[in-house]
Amino acid sequence: MAKLIYEGKAKQMWSTDDPEVLRVVYMDQATALNGKKKDQINGKGIVNNEISSLIFQYLMKKGIETHFIKKLSETEELVKKVEIVPLEMVTRNVSAGHFATRFGVEEGICFEKPVEETYYKSDELDDPFINESQSLALKIVKKEELDAMWDISRRVNEILTALFDRMGLILVDFKLEFGRLSNGRIVLADEFSPDNCRLWDKQTRAHMDKDVYRRDLGDLTSVYEEVLRRLKNELSKEEA
Amino acid sequence: MAKLIYEGKAKQMWSTDDPEVLRVVYMDQATALNGKKKDQINGKGIVNNEISSLIFQYLMKKGIETHFIKKLSETEELVKKVEIVPLEMVTRNVSAGHFATRFGVEEGICFEKPVEETYYKSDELDDPFINESQSLALKIVKKEELDAMWDISRRVNEILTALFDRMGLILVDFKLEFGRLSNGRIVLADEFSPDNCRLWDKQTRAHMDKDVYRRDLGDLTSVYEEVLRRLKNELSKEEA
Repeated sequence: MAKLIYEGKAKQMWSTDDPEVLRVVYMDQATALNGKKKDQINGKGIVNNEISSLIFQYLMKKGIETHFIKKLSETEELVKKVEIVPLEMVTRNVSAGHFATRFGVEEGICFEKPVEETYYKSDELDDPFINESQSLALKIVKKEELDAMWDISRRVNEILTALFDRMGLILVDFKLEFGRLSNGRIVLADEFSPDNCRLWDKQTRAHMDKDVYRRDLGDLTSVYEEVLRRLKNELSKEEA
Repeated sequence: MAKLIYEGKAKQMWSTDDPEVLRVVYMDQATALNGKKKDQINGKGIVNNEISSLIFQYLMKKGIETHFIKKLSETEELVKKVEIVPLEMVTRNVSAGHFATRFGVEEGICFEKPVEETYYKSDELDDPFINESQSLALKIVKKEELDAMWDISRRVNEILTALFDRMGLILVDFKLEFGRLSNGRIVLADEFSPDNCRLWDKQTRAHMDKDVYRRDLGDLTSVYEEVLRRLKNELSKEEA
C-alpha cells in the first residue's frame, strides 16, 4: 500500500513498492506569503508537472544529476528517494520581490554576478534567511555539500538562462532544493516551474510566474500554459 | 568652530581643527530593539569611553590598525576621520540573543568555528541581515575590503577572547565596524564596549553587557564598572 510520506504546499510524496523510489503528485494549489495566502488553481498541477518534467530532463541531458526518474501521468512523476537538505538555494540575476523590498532598491537591476542566498526550511521559524557560516555552525549541511549545491546551481543558471532567453523570457531568479541519495550523493530535487522562479517576458516585461498569483495580476494557469507552450516549441526546435 | 558631524545612538562625532581628526563624545544613553527602547543611563558614557580606549590601545599594541588616536577627557576621545563601511560585522563564539531566537536554538551552544554575520547599517531598512553576495551586488563594499574586515575581526576575536578569559569572562559575541582612511586603507573604527559585545561571567554565567539593559536585569553602569575594574586589573598585571 502506498503511504503518504510528505505533503507540501503544492505537492504530495507517496511511497512505492521500491523503497528507493517515490511518486510525486502535483496538486492544484497555490500559496504565497509563507502559506498566509492559499488558493485552489485549476489545472496548475498538470502544467507544473509537465514544465518541471521537461526542464529536469533537459538539465539531465546537459549533465546535471537530479532525483527525476520519469513522468507517470498528467499530475504524477516518479523520483529517486532523497533526504532533502533543509536549505532553499536562491539565485538572482535581476533584483525583484523580497530582495528589492529588503534592501530598498528597485526591481529590474541586472547584477554583474548573480546574487546567491540560502533560506533555512523551517515552518515554525518562517524559513529564515541564513548564511553559510550559520548553516555550518548549526550542522544543517556540510561544507562540501554546500559547495556541490552551489556548483550545480551555477550550472543550472547558465543552462536555463540561455534556454529561457531563446524562449523570449528573462530568468530573473529561482529557488532550488537538493537531496542526498542513499549513498550520500547530492542531487537536484524538488521541481523547476514558474512556482519557484521568476520569468519576465523580454519584450513586455510581463510577469510569467507565481507573481501573477502573489500580486493578483490575472489568470495563473493560462500564464503557466504560455510558458509551457514556448518551452515545448523551443525544445522541439532543438531536437530537430 | 567644531561642527556636529554625526549623532548616533550613544555617541556624537565632532569636527576638529584637523580635517583628518574627529572628536567623539560618549553619551549617557542606552537604546535597544533598534531604538524602540531608549533611556538615559548616568555614568555609562564615562565607563564606555574608558573601556573602549583601553581595548583599542590593547589591540593596537597587538598590531591591529584602528581609528583611535587618544582619550581626551572622561567622555571624549580623538579618532582619525574615516568613511564608515555601512556593515556591522558580528562574530559569535556562543549562541545567544537574536541568533538563538532566529534559528530556534538555546543560548550557550559553543560553536566549533565562530559564526560570522553582516548587517547592512540602514535605519530606514531596520539594519537587515545581509550576506557577502548581496553586499557585493549592492556595491556596499569591495571583496578585498570585506576580506580585510574579516581578517581583522578574526584577529580581534583571538586577542580579546584570551584577554576576557583571563578576566573571568566569556566573550560570547561582538559587533565591529570598520572605516576607510582617506588613503582607502581599512581600519577598525567605532568602539569596543559592553554595548556591542556579550560577556558572561565564567563562574556564574551572569550577563556583564547590554543584555542587563535589554532584559531589565539590574543596574547597567555598575555592571560595566565591574568589567572596567577587571580590565584595569588584568592590564596592570600584564604591564607589570
